[in-house]
Amino acid sequence: MNLVPDTALAARLFDTLRERSFDGVGITRVAYGPGEAMAHALLAEEAGALGLERRVDPIGNQYLTLPGADRARLPIVIGSHLDSVPQGGNFDGAAGVLAGLAAVAGLVRAGYQPAQDVTVMCIRAEEAGAWFPTSYPGSRGALGMLTAADLAVRRRDSGRTLADHMRQEGFDPAFAERGERAVQAAAFLELHIEQGPTLETAGVPLGIVTGIPGSRRFRAARVLGEYNHSGATARKYRRDAAVALAELVYRLDAYWVEMEARGHHLVCTFCEMATTEEAGFTKIAGEARFSLDIRAVDMAACDAMVARLHGLVAEIEARRGVRFELGAESGSAPSVMDAAIRAGLARAADARAVPYMAMASGAGHDAAAFAAAGIPAAMLFVRNQNGSHNPHEAMALPDFDLACQVITKWLQEVTA
Amino acid sequence: MNLVPDTALAARLFDTLRERSFDGVGITRVAYGPGEAMAHALLAEEAGALGLERRVDPIGNQYLTLPGADRARLPIVIGSHLDSVPQGGNFDGAAGVLAGLAAVAGLVRAGYQPAQDVTVMCIRAEEAGAWFPTSYPGSRGALGMLTAADLAVRRRDSGRTLADHMRQEGFDPAFAERGERAVQAAAFLELHIEQGPTLETAGVPLGIVTGIPGSRRFRAARVLGEYNHSGATARKYRRDAAVALAELVYRLDAYWVEMEARGHHLVCTFCEMATTEEAGFTKIAGEARFSLDIRAVDMAACDAMVARLHGLVAEIEARRGVRFELGAESGSAPSVMDAAIRAGLARAADARAVPYMAMASGAGHDAAAFAAAGIPAAMLFVRNQNGSHNPHEAMALPDFDLACQVITKWLQEVTA
Repeated sequence: MNLVPDTALAARLFDTLRERSFDGVGITRVAYGPGEAMAHALLAEEAGALGLERRVDPIGNQYLTLPGADRARLPIVIGSHLDSVPQGGNFDGAAGVLAGLAAVAGLVRAGYQPAQDVTVMCIRAEEAGAWFPTSYPGSRGALGMLTAADLAVRRRDSGRTLADHMRQEGFDPAFAERGERAVQAAAFLELHIEQGPTLETAGVPLGIVTGIPGSRRFRAARVLGEYNHSGATARKYRRDAAVALAELVYRLDAYWVEMEARGHHLVCTFCEMATTEEAGFTKIAGEARFSLDIRAVDMAACDAMVARLHGLVAEIEARRGVRFELGAESGSAPSVMDAAIRAGLARAADARAVPYMAMASGAGHDAAAFAAAGIPAAMLFVRNQNGSHNPHEAMALPDFDLACQVITKWLQEVTA
Repeated sequence: MNLVPDTALAARLFDTLRERSFDGVGITRVAYGPGEAMAHALLAEEAGALGLERRVDPIGNQYLTLPGADRARLPIVIGSHLDSVPQGGNFDGAAGVLAGLAAVAGLVRAGYQPAQDVTVMCIRAEEAGAWFPTSYPGSRGALGMLTAADLAVRRRDSGRTLADHMRQEGFDPAFAERGERAVQAAAFLELHIEQGPTLETAGVPLGIVTGIPGSRRFRAARVLGEYNHSGATARKYRRDAAVALAELVYRLDAYWVEMEARGHHLVCTFCEMATTEEAGFTKIAGEARFSLDIRAVDMAACDAMVARLHGLVAEIEARRGVRFELGAESGSAPSVMDAAIRAGLARAADARAVPYMAMASGAGHDAAAFAAAGIPAAMLFVRNQNGSHNPHEAMALPDFDLACQVITKWLQEVTA
């Protein structure tokens, strides 16, 4: 039996999602907000048309299931998130859900019954950087891994807590605190657009992900100097927060170059950097704020960067008369993707003659939460132009179709 | 005849000004706005009490004159500005006006008639960095040096033009455009708090200013890169505006150190530096904005810094895949203070046994406009703690009194 995914269905749903969440500049689907709710409703409707079982867990993740022959067996779960960053693109997140739906629709159209349940999971609130400053609250909530502290984080736009927003959408944050699992799985597979140019540059449509990096993050750091008159204050009397921060940024970037030259893979990004409102022309900056995001699959590389960060901070403080406050540190542990699923995906790609390469993820994904919960997890990356988290994401539908074919072939093997 | 200034009068007026322009944090006297108008009205009232002649020119500068024996001779003008930066200090500007009034009041109390008119000038709108982004519009307007372009600059808080604000306060911007002079003078003397720590560190109460620096300024520069995902974009694919700006700031600062080591006197300040609103955690910055203020009495030093700026920009653009837009450049020529007045002030200080040192100004002042107009001009700096342009300016009244004594002694010599 040669199963084929219903990529046309996915294409239609991409268009509908775009129409319903275009904000004038890009795509906005607010986590636990209207855009995300719209996308969940759309998937519910399509699942109904396909005759899939539908379940929503107490915190709002949605499960669309093609029943297997043996319902006692753990399901195969395929999914990703349906929220987006503000003014983002249409594919980041949604592509993983629609790939699952396209594959399952292919099974339905063919009248194929899998050995066990196959579930498309629509996950809530993955875009932590944009909405809730905590990692993967939707998937971690489904996996019994949320804490009271996670539920108390505040959404950046509204200032209200994750728990509040869950309740407002009709869900039950208390469930998440009980540590129960809303989902079990034999395997979790997440398709996602690659968010960098590696596949595009290599001319390869698919990536099989080896691991998801861990991170060490400083979201609200600052350096304090002293405001002074820019004309009247000689260099030796200055405590210039802007120059102090510039030195830190420049020299930590130079250390990254050194680390790369020694063969370490990591990223180090000063995402935000700004003198404060009190600054102004003819003033020496007395304060500057910044955020720093360090990630690597090998945590030792993160740790080395943070050690250098602390060393530079001490040196710059002493020499420039400023004081750094790095603020609270957050972060996550790295995840290794399941070797058996990766091997299965490689076999499926070979069987379909689809080119692929093995690659580490740069970003975090819901698959990391599944891996952390002890569930075999893997990811497929699809080539994508113009990066992600912007309106210009440009995954080509033929590439997406190749990925759906690989997933379908893999599903056929694991559900035989 | 041993003339003494009426420093007690100045002390009382400092207190009144502070009461009437305290904004909850510091002192705000908006240029062509309510705080400045209040200060002008207060000075008018005190001048009336002293029996001085009062005149207001068509753009709002106020002249309070003790008539001389020969009214045909050019007057001696002593003054400064009455506006302040937002949340600034009480002394920046006002001290120069009150020093003039204290000295003239001393002459009045003693029944002393000068040979020529002695005029206290209350100048408008000197704090260009805070309000109108052009240099010394009040004094330049009185000296026939404003252009239509100057009158079209917009006040930072209101967004309305200088001409609009002049009209709103009842003045006539058309006068300024005709190039006529509202003031003539044999000499212009401006007392000002020192805005750096040089006098305080040296333990000297007064500075006799040798010159006012020229400047080269980039008030609205930016660097454009490309927004991308901070986790998923390898170093070699990045066009990071934040790191590019950090490199520029750090390396231009290093060049300043080199210039100082070679004996050049200058200042170089990145007053503002910020990634834009589109930035956010987990994004690589696609744009960063900055402002740059370079000043030196020797313009060759400014020019060398700007040449290095352009060199660094080209190098960083090529290596980091970014593009700098330095925007419009503004600036001013340096001014040399009049040697004869400086010598007279030194004689007066020696006669009163007041310690002083010669020093360059770091900041620009109205005296520069007088010098540019060909009027012999000079400045006295008074020791001041805690810098300027902030609520913590802390000129000690005894130091101010020493300066008023020097001015009075000098006045006695030049008006004999």
